Amino acid sequence: MIPAPYLLYLGHFQDPADIKTSRGLAVFRREDCIAEFRHDDCPLTLDLPRMTIAEAAAAGAKTLVLGIAAAGGRLNEALIADAAAAISAGMNVAAGLHHRLRDQPTLAAAAAASGVSLFDVRDPPADLPVGNGKRREGKRLLTVGTDCSTGKMFTTLALTTALRERGVNADFRATGQTGILIAGDGVPVDAVVADFIAGAIEMLSPARTDGGWDLIEGQGSLFHPSFAGVSTGLLHGAQPDALVLCHDPSRPHLRGLPHYPLPDVGRCIAENLRVAALTNPDVTMVGIALNTSKINEDEARRLCETTGAENGLPCTDPHRFGADAIIDRLLAAFDMVPVA
Amino acid sequence: MIPAPYLLYLGHFQDPADIKTSRGLAVFRREDCIAEFRHDDCPLTLDLPRMTIAEAAAAGAKTLVLGIAAAGGRLNEALIADAAAAISAGMNVAAGLHHRLRDQPTLAAAAAASGVSLFDVRDPPADLPVGNGKRREGKRLLTVGTDCSTGKMFTTLALTTALRERGVNADFRATGQTGILIAGDGVPVDAVVADFIAGAIEMLSPARTDGGWDLIEGQGSLFHPSFAGVSTGLLHGAQPDALVLCHDPSRPHLRGLPHYPLPDVGRCIAENLRVAALTNPDVTMVGIALNTSKINEDEARRLCETTGAENGLPCTDPHRFGADAIIDRLLAAFDMVPVA
Repeated sequence: MIPAPYLLYLGHFQDPADIKTSRGLAVFRREDCIAEFRHDDCPLTLDLPRMTIAEAAAAGAKTLVLGIAAAGGRLNEALIADAAAAISAGMNVAAGLHHRLRDQPTLAAAAAASGVSLFDVRDPPADLPVGNGKRREGKRLLTVGTDCSTGKMFTTLALTTALRERGVNADFRATGQTGILIAGDGVPVDAVVADFIAGAIEMLSPARTDGGWDLIEGQGSLFHPSFAGVSTGLLHGAQPDALVLCHDPSRPHLRGLPHYPLPDVGRCIAENLRVAALTNPDVTMVGIALNTSKINEDEARRLCETTGAENGLPCTDPHRFGADAIIDRLLAAFDMVPVA
Repeated sequence: MIPAPYLLYLGHFQDPADIKTSRGLAVFRREDCIAEFRHDDCPLTLDLPRMTIAEAAAAGAKTLVLGIAAAGGRLNEALIADAAAAISAGMNVAAGLHHRLRDQPTLAAAAAASGVSLFDVRDPPADLPVGNGKRREGKRLLTVGTDCSTGKMFTTLALTTALRERGVNADFRATGQTGILIAGDGVPVDAVVADFIAGAIEMLSPARTDGGWDLIEGQGSLFHPSFAGVSTGLLHGAQPDALVLCHDPSRPHLRGLPHYPLPDVGRCIAENLRVAALTNPDVTMVGIALNTSKINEDEARRLCETTGAENGLPCTDPHRFGADAIIDRLLAAFDMVPVA
């Protein structure tokens, strides 16, 4: 639906967490990504060719993807200027910000004049239902986190792939801008009107009767004072049978909030189970996914072992060590026969 | 801002909880209410004169208030037909539904043709901030509930009045359509985009340094699978020093969800304290407000005594027995000298 190939935007950003949407596309839709665009002060890279907007347009890029995920999702002047340049070069622009591209007068006028399209992937569907909390058929797994941006989307995609490799029908259900761009559809749950959070997830992951699993991408954290409302509604709407906790052990405090420490992993597991039990009393935690990208491999392996042992759960970094440890527990917990 | 006097709408509704906005205006802004409008199948009344739309217009009514609160807040054909009749009679129309009056083509065209105004009080402010969870000056009380529509707004208004009578500066902070219509301003928290729930409440109740209290109207319930996300964000954004739990002991199940029993009062108190402690570890529960409107007075008095004793808290029906028992506890808990 959004014309490829893509030019991925890094801009002036400094923190890898700020460009997670661009990185998600570079990892999971790499065949559709032609280059990355960054200014000289940007220390980040996606290991794609670096191109200017003119170079990318000449190389055939059809859409500039503003794959950034700053808190609050606002457009700033640098973003607007770079997007306007892409439009002038004949490219479409896609973004998943709360501030819609089409509501920015400069960009709306430029796109109309150039005959290109603006794609706002954070537009929620119209006519969302209020959640009803009724038990529905099918199995669902939800990723939850100690914080925002701890690897929930990556883990959910990795678990979906691993489950399919074991012969189980499995579908990824996207709830954030990056997941939606990767999957091609989904519901941007943090952008729905507050009364409809749970209902939106009930709609995203309806009853299924093929014996397969929906793997739902989590958002935020019950312990994040900005976004816990979203996480709570998501837990209730997902009605998960299984949870996987995602955690970044190298983070000094909650993302964007230096005055809030990370919650303890064990406490976070207990609280997620307690909240989820409202709509599914049988919910169970099946594993912990650590994001160890800032830790050396020996230390990462030790950390997975100790964190798993402390909490009585399989613990892995799905990116580094694969997702099999969690899949084994999931299959065992639900009496599924693993395919060798 | 919304021209009075008002004609209050009851329509075809059967359940008192469905017309709580009309009733709130009839109670708290009675001097501005000229009449009620209901169809023959409506068993409810606000003890105002019953008038047709033509009669109300002739009597000087300036605005029809669609004071209904059905889950999801949708317009239906009967509502649209009655609103169109009011517009034809020269009246403005006000509502607090998720479906906006101005987005309903028939009503928008009729209002434009008649030169009257449509007021959508559930429009959230533009440019809401993301919550930051930082401790701010001032004291805040939040009402919470075992369910939706348990008397949180009434209790918050009653506590505000009672606190002022003791010589304490106190302000009501409205978070729902009824409260906003009564107070003249506020933030419709269930209508904000999910990422901004906590931030909206931080904006509604900013730092105050006069030694006074903000009394914030709660919404929903942590135990309601449709709306707990809103309640969670509200708890975190309010950063309450004091909580008051509102409960309707005659309700057989959660509102709109026959498959969900009401939570136990003690468990609901514990869970609200646990969630609120994320942004204010010193939060304390200061009382229980029962809605005993469906119970005889002797039984109601006994129920307040037993519920209070079981939970170690003052318990009253503010409508029937006043709010003093809770105010006494609040003043004692915060070392305030009560004015005799």
